[in-house]
Amino acid sequence: MTLETMSLADAMRAIGVRARAAAQVLAHAGTETKIAALRAAAAALREATPELLAANSAEVSAARSDGLAEAMIERLTLDERRITAIAASLEDVATLPDPVGDEIARWTRPNGLDVRRVRVPLGVIGIIYESRPNVAADAGALCLWAGNAVILRCGSESFSSSCVIVEALQRGIASAGIPAAAVQLVPTRDREAVGLLLRMDEFVDVIIPRGGRSLIERVQRETRIPIIAHLDGVCHTYIDAAADLEKARAIIVNAKMRRVSICGATETLLVDRRVAAAYLPVLLGDLHAAGCEIRGDAEVQTVDPLAIAATEADWRAEYLDAILAVRVVDGVAGAIEHVNAYGSHHTDAIVTEDEDAANAFVREVESAIVLVNASTQFADGGELGMGAEIGISTARLPPRGPVGAEQLTTYKYVIRGTGQIRC
Amino acid sequence: MTLETMSLADAMRAIGVRARAAAQVLAHAGTETKIAALRAAAAALREATPELLAANSAEVSAARSDGLAEAMIERLTLDERRITAIAASLEDVATLPDPVGDEIARWTRPNGLDVRRVRVPLGVIGIIYESRPNVAADAGALCLWAGNAVILRCGSESFSSSCVIVEALQRGIASAGIPAAAVQLVPTRDREAVGLLLRMDEFVDVIIPRGGRSLIERVQRETRIPIIAHLDGVCHTYIDAAADLEKARAIIVNAKMRRVSICGATETLLVDRRVAAAYLPVLLGDLHAAGCEIRGDAEVQTVDPLAIAATEADWRAEYLDAILAVRVVDGVAGAIEHVNAYGSHHTDAIVTEDEDAANAFVREVESAIVLVNASTQFADGGELGMGAEIGISTARLPPRGPVGAEQLTTYKYVIRGTGQIRC
Repeated sequence: MTLETMSLADAMRAIGVRARAAAQVLAHAGTETKIAALRAAAAALREATPELLAANSAEVSAARSDGLAEAMIERLTLDERRITAIAASLEDVATLPDPVGDEIARWTRPNGLDVRRVRVPLGVIGIIYESRPNVAADAGALCLWAGNAVILRCGSESFSSSCVIVEALQRGIASAGIPAAAVQLVPTRDREAVGLLLRMDEFVDVIIPRGGRSLIERVQRETRIPIIAHLDGVCHTYIDAAADLEKARAIIVNAKMRRVSICGATETLLVDRRVAAAYLPVLLGDLHAAGCEIRGDAEVQTVDPLAIAATEADWRAEYLDAILAVRVVDGVAGAIEHVNAYGSHHTDAIVTEDEDAANAFVREVESAIVLVNASTQFADGGELGMGAEIGISTARLPPRGPVGAEQLTTYKYVIRGTGQIRC
Repeated sequence: MTLETMSLADAMRAIGVRARAAAQVLAHAGTETKIAALRAAAAALREATPELLAANSAEVSAARSDGLAEAMIERLTLDERRITAIAASLEDVATLPDPVGDEIARWTRPNGLDVRRVRVPLGVIGIIYESRPNVAADAGALCLWAGNAVILRCGSESFSSSCVIVEALQRGIASAGIPAAAVQLVPTRDREAVGLLLRMDEFVDVIIPRGGRSLIERVQRETRIPIIAHLDGVCHTYIDAAADLEKARAIIVNAKMRRVSICGATETLLVDRRVAAAYLPVLLGDLHAAGCEIRGDAEVQTVDPLAIAATEADWRAEYLDAILAVRVVDGVAGAIEHVNAYGSHHTDAIVTEDEDAANAFVREVESAIVLVNASTQFADGGELGMGAEIGISTARLPPRGPVGAEQLTTYKYVIRGTGQIRC
């Protein structure tokens, strides 16, 4: 029986069974095999370029006639350059250190037991993502590199593109001797499949939702499977009284405007009351010049006639746009209080030359990433030297921050003895 | 308004608010303060011995007249010796390395950014436990040592004992300058409080259920808060054809019978078919002599007339009793297949002198702890040199295996620059 003729529930179960079996093989695949698999996958993807362009262009047309937002269409659209970049990123993953099998720690007990904590794959990962079809390749490659099988569920508008990408990956990895089922796509646009995937505790070890807050909340509500989620990036930059103004100017314009659509973009600027009157006109002048809309509190509005009045909602907003909320706070303590109350525990920065203020900020701000005198746009696995990542986790439990290949593994304890028994 | 006069929902919310505030203080408490707090808590608990004995003895009487099982009553019962041991264990926790603030990793990027991964507390931990009142002290102390505030919810039969213990802890830690609300007990036996606690996403970062499968399943069903759970310990010992018979004899009797009620006790013995006829009579003879009931497959029954026929349910059973399921398997491959299919990913051991068999077993058995030539009863944080623990996590995602103070922390990235912006 093929997946096409099964009930959806049976088809999903079959996918789960195949994923579990593939994960058991993949967990013990050597580094060289995985390198060969990812290179072959990249080659297969390049070969599939015409087919992928055709599928994608039909989907883009459909999205346009369905009236999809321009930003969504932009994310959905592939061209030859983007496909080349996706293929190259598969090869890049194969240059990362292979995390599987790493000995994380080792010690010997007084009774002679040799204890090792060894890195192993997580198993089967379910990824639910929205419009960008490149996620199939990027996330699939990272999961595979970490020794995990992956079940991908894409947004319906990129289903055809995702099919072509996943089939190319499967041809590539199978040619290197890894089961094709190590990377599977849920083979239907049927929305019911998401609910089924979320209930597949037996076959899926971790769910990674990649999308907006409503997706993540649905996943949290409907599954008992552990989740690696990144919620919003409501990132702050705080300019302290002891900030170097020139550094502050360069940092805030970069943190907000370099790319407004990434989760590490600053959404709120906090300025120390002691320098607000002196610094704000300069900082906001730069931001206006860069095309940024300012939404400020009463004090900001007194120094910036262009500023729109900020409401309570602005302090919690992830604009992902050329808009910045600006608030005057009472020194580093006020900044910490604001960030912990309104932020999303993603990435926050302080600009200061005062070591005590910097220390207080990095100690007390409860975010996954805290920066001193640098742009929040560095919140990215590649920029931090951790390689490609699947997202930035804002959870408290590990993995937290950038989730790359190493963070897609777990560990086990391997203990060797010579006949020891417990007293 | 006191907790007594509030609605339950308001009272739980007030507990959450206090816990969050206490966690923010505790996260930055120095090691010396935490040592003083735990020592003072131990002293306060010793002083409270008469009060605790009185409360406990009333609860034990009530449990008896309610017809509680003898094993439950045994877990509930405190005496002077046990209280002394609980107080001593508080002091023992204060001798562990303080995990908070540890630099886990550090590197510098080509652009000069200094990246550190630093250990920080999880925040507020909710612990739901069943009858043993000592959990209040043990779990409370470990959470506190790792910088976390804790909200404890005990079984109703140990509520009075838990109240006395928590009040003593609170007096102790408050005398050292840590907010008493760092350790709180849900102040009611009302079952509805559990449901409320499970919905307190805003105030509780992690839930740890300590109890039977039904408790853990309820928690998984009702909460979106991340869980650190240990499910059953269906642990195996596999005796390979290349086992040293004398080691095997000592290990299996210890693994099963040293203490039958702990989660690391072996529940299933697997024996390699090649040595079943030769080894089984010896091994099962030892076990019968130690008072163990044997439930075996057909082959086991042919060599052991005392063996009861095992059913499918026996391969999944966590007896926590002097009962052992015994099965003949085809070598290490058969053992791995059985363990991965029927086990609970807790702790499994192989006895063999064959390095290849040992390597295959530790590589392919998907459990948190895998042992070679040692008793599964070593599955314990203290025995493995990791200090006191709150349980053994059988989850795939970290923390996995023994959950001690270090595993009750998370990390954040602290990045220092000199004005870097992203290209």
